[in-house]
Amino acid sequence: MGVVDLEGRYRGYLACLNERRLDDLPEFVHDPVVHNDRTLSVVEFQELLRRDATEIPDLYYAVELLVVQGERVACRIRFDCTPTASFRGIPPSGRPISFVEHVFYSYRDGRIAEIWSLIDMDAVREQLSR
Amino acid sequence: MGVVDLEGRYRGYLACLNERRLDDLPEFVHDPVVHNDRTLSVVEFQELLRRDATEIPDLYYAVELLVVQGERVACRIRFDCTPTASFRGIPPSGRPISFVEHVFYSYRDGRIAEIWSLIDMDAVREQLSR
Repeated sequence: MGVVDLEGRYRGYLACLNERRLDDLPEFVHDPVVHNDRTLSVVEFQELLRRDATEIPDLYYAVELLVVQGERVACRIRFDCTPTASFRGIPPSGRPISFVEHVFYSYRDGRIAEIWSLIDMDAVREQLSR
Repeated sequence: MGVVDLEGRYRGYLACLNERRLDDLPEFVHDPVVHNDRTLSVVEFQELLRRDATEIPDLYYAVELLVVQGERVACRIRFDCTPTASFRGIPPSGRPISFVEHVFYSYRDGRIAEIWSLIDMDAVREQLSR
């Protein structure tokens, strides 16, 4: 798959998340998928994403930087959102927060096979504790 | 500059850091350079890198994942090292730690013009507090 196609596939994956079509996830993600060194079934990965979207109902994945080469994608994703429940163990403040995720993906056969994600949790904590 | 050349330029930058040839930095980095939204002179950026290498004398930038497209580079860098002084405000424990940085670069005229860096500070804190 070419770089242009892979970028399209990746943007399709983010649209799937943003539109909460999590039942379509198997179209974009391998089963199983490796997420930060943990091997998850697609159903377990769906649950993880569903939990994020439950804790943050207005969660929206906005691409800030996108780099695609071969079977690899790297993305800086911006989240401007308001958690309504504890997010990764941090209680909500009722106020909006803004933070980024820097995430790498390895594709296999057009689907995401491995994910290395880093979220700016210091920014999340700092803003939620204000 | 092609993707292969840019990858070479970027690996040259990391070699410059690993070999502590910080005087050569202007060869790889624009003056000024934007680092996490702060505009720094090359001298100020040098100081920042020198401080890291003073706090962690065995600091070594090891490429785990590298994605290059157009004028953009994304890298997952692994650090296996032993801080000997407070690193980003966290006191050393005397024991080795392992953590990653997910970092994006925008190049202009063959030099790094902007950097978006995210370090896994939770991993650093967790290991240094053991």
